[in-house]
Amino acid sequence: MSKAQVIDEHAVIHSTFTIEKTYPHPPARVFFGLTDKEMKRRWLIEGEGFEIYEYESDFRLGGADTSRFSFRGGPELTNDTQFQDIIPSRRLVFTYRMTIGGKPLSVSLVTAELLPSGKGTALTYTEQGVYFGGAEDVAGREHGSRVLLDKLGEALGE
Amino acid sequence: MSKAQVIDEHAVIHSTFTIEKTYPHPPARVFFGLTDKEMKRRWLIEGEGFEIYEYESDFRLGGADTSRFSFRGGPELTNDTQFQDIIPSRRLVFTYRMTIGGKPLSVSLVTAELLPSGKGTALTYTEQGVYFGGAEDVAGREHGSRVLLDKLGEALGE
Repeated sequence: MSKAQVIDEHAVIHSTFTIEKTYPHPPARVFFGLTDKEMKRRWLIEGEGFEIYEYESDFRLGGADTSRFSFRGGPELTNDTQFQDIIPSRRLVFTYRMTIGGKPLSVSLVTAELLPSGKGTALTYTEQGVYFGGAEDVAGREHGSRVLLDKLGEALGE
Repeated sequence: MSKAQVIDEHAVIHSTFTIEKTYPHPPARVFFGLTDKEMKRRWLIEGEGFEIYEYESDFRLGGADTSRFSFRGGPELTNDTQFQDIIPSRRLVFTYRMTIGGKPLSVSLVTAELLPSGKGTALTYTEQGVYFGGAEDVAGREHGSRVLLDKLGEALGE
């Protein structure tokens, strides 16, 4: 292997994306959906094609979540989340590290901001991340996050 | 207080900056300086004007650092760091939460990449962050990080 290839092997990509979404539920309900252990399990790692090996959640400032799962028979995925800032019904900041098949995939910093919008809630979800694979991981993360936030809406009874 | 002011009170700023710096030491030495508990203490929280109240470091994947200190008689600052990705002498990814005077200040995701450059090391330091105060915090963080990376150079015997 050439030196250039060795260097590329550890190259990273930094990326930021923002998703805006409105839910027909008040901020307290959306915040509950984002943070409650059983609600979160439903939209984050459950559903058709998911197999769950481990899921622990300790929602508090400085607390952590851990999950191990696979999707559609693929390699094991892990998610280790740390809760960094909590303003109930208003703001949630967390960081999370993911691995795939035992290899580092990404580390992300997420800010979820909730504001009243009519009788519902306007969510602004900003994810700043570093990715250890290719550009397809970045595009996949934004798409995947949109899918998860739609699943959150379903879990809330949208 | 008007509703607009209440909303502004919790507004956030997202920002990313990159600092590039070359050290005359090989990557293994720079990595040691970035991660060794006593070396880190020297450039991160020690020196003229600093008062240290607490400093603990547990450098390993999933490990954490905690420090409490003040600078020039100002309010207490805290730094809670989590180590997210470690490739010795090559890459370090960590997240850290800061508070000032008991109030949340910022949460950041840092990627430090080290590459050989002649007999020395080229460091690329990328900080993606969310700030809970004003724009001056963002400018201050970039400036402060440059100062710290210069102090790292001094600690390494630059």
